Amino acid sequence: MNKKQLFEQIKLKKSFLCIGLDPVMENLPKHLLEYEDPIFEFNKQIIDATKDICVAYKPNTAFYESRGLKGWDSLLKTWKYIPSGIFTIADAKRGDIGNTSAMYADAFFNEEKSGMSFDSVTVAPYMGKDSVSPFLTHADKWVILLALTSNAGHNDFQLQNTANGKLYEEVIRISSSWATSDQMMYVVGATMPAEFANIRTLAPDHFLLVPGVGAQGGSLSAVCEYGLNDSCGLLINAARSIIYAGNGADFAEKAREEALKMQVEMEEILEKANLL
Amino acid sequence: MNKKQLFEQIKLKKSFLCIGLDPVMENLPKHLLEYEDPIFEFNKQIIDATKDICVAYKPNTAFYESRGLKGWDSLLKTWKYIPSGIFTIADAKRGDIGNTSAMYADAFFNEEKSGMSFDSVTVAPYMGKDSVSPFLTHADKWVILLALTSNAGHNDFQLQNTANGKLYEEVIRISSSWATSDQMMYVVGATMPAEFANIRTLAPDHFLLVPGVGAQGGSLSAVCEYGLNDSCGLLINAARSIIYAGNGADFAEKAREEALKMQVEMEEILEKANLL
Repeated sequence: MNKKQLFEQIKLKKSFLCIGLDPVMENLPKHLLEYEDPIFEFNKQIIDATKDICVAYKPNTAFYESRGLKGWDSLLKTWKYIPSGIFTIADAKRGDIGNTSAMYADAFFNEEKSGMSFDSVTVAPYMGKDSVSPFLTHADKWVILLALTSNAGHNDFQLQNTANGKLYEEVIRISSSWATSDQMMYVVGATMPAEFANIRTLAPDHFLLVPGVGAQGGSLSAVCEYGLNDSCGLLINAARSIIYAGNGADFAEKAREEALKMQVEMEEILEKANLL
Repeated sequence: MNKKQLFEQIKLKKSFLCIGLDPVMENLPKHLLEYEDPIFEFNKQIIDATKDICVAYKPNTAFYESRGLKGWDSLLKTWKYIPSGIFTIADAKRGDIGNTSAMYADAFFNEEKSGMSFDSVTVAPYMGKDSVSPFLTHADKWVILLALTSNAGHNDFQLQNTANGKLYEEVIRISSSWATSDQMMYVVGATMPAEFANIRTLAPDHFLLVPGVGAQGGSLSAVCEYGLNDSCGLLINAARSIIYAGNGADFAEKAREEALKMQVEMEEILEKANLL
């Protein structure tokens, strides 16, 4: 899916919500444990209940890998089940030397080889350009590069001063020469909304994937105040606050209710910004 | 495996060689394609031919994930096949917010959940302490943190100046307070041997995992000149130069010959350093 198509979906659904599909067996509603693949069944019902009000799904690969082979199988089935027209993000935070990153690109972008073809993959910037470039050779696929993450650990290195500003600013500045805003997005956590004005001077046109609204405490309106651009430019991710909104037979309805609250808020924001 | 046991193995085998198990279908000897799982069969024969002269095996997960479910299965079988007493490294370069890194730790350290229990996993430092800590809660398991990698991309961020030295130096300095040299190692590429003296002032006691000798052009003797410490402190990885030494029915023998060349060189180095 390209940038124009993504913005079209946002306008169509009046939403820039991304739902994190990060299920843990211990937290699933008990009745799902009877299914052969409870994790996939959970995702399936969440997708059915929310696909008209979100524009992206983001399974974090850790939640699947932790279950070994059967987890990887659940991830494959989940990717296949996501309807076309919805932007898919493999939240994998990969990155390695060039020939190895090319293998990761196959893992997430090459259906013939791996059985999956997400629209995008999250990538860690530490190893530099040649660790990111192999993901960019796939047409209409995106790299979502970690810039300023939502966790406390962003203090350790991301906020350190370099010769040209903080490290996360350098990551944005340098990497924006590797690809245009048609193939690159940045991860920017909602837990530091004050940084968004600054980020928009560095990356005015890029989409930002924003985790940290919801369970991690970030505010949607604070992020949007400086984060919106003329293509919306934001994908707001929520996982736990939506997928665990309920814990009974009606968990999918409860998830929809939570997602709908966010969609309504997003519709207002898009209207005010004259983006609809 | 703990640090003392690892050094015992090094003395026993007179070797600090780590073999990278990074097979690609296109490069396998043709006769292996008849096997049900050619990738596993390749690894199995490489392991059989080299297990007495190396102290570690390091499968890079990208090479398995790129083949989807069947690749993940080959990785599981490979981990199971590695004899006990040999240090195992999941070269996965993971790292995420705390609760998610805990899932990755399960993926590589918790056999009951994932089917695999490597001795160590490589981790990317960009997300900071809380992205690394969950790996350290597993007894006798190791984090091998990326410090100065062997690829050209290390110039982009790792060599940038911060307030307290280059970024990779800050990574070593700060992270060495997160765990002792009994649970943490660092990845330092062989392609910049001049940095090893400097690294040894920051991390005198840590083991360093050193890729980049062999196909990437790094020199073993240059690395050892400054890299050795009183527990050896080095695991030198070679992958392509060993596993693809031959391409016929005798590929495993050829691999052994290449590995043996390195072992002989290592034995001399260990002897000269009075470590045997």
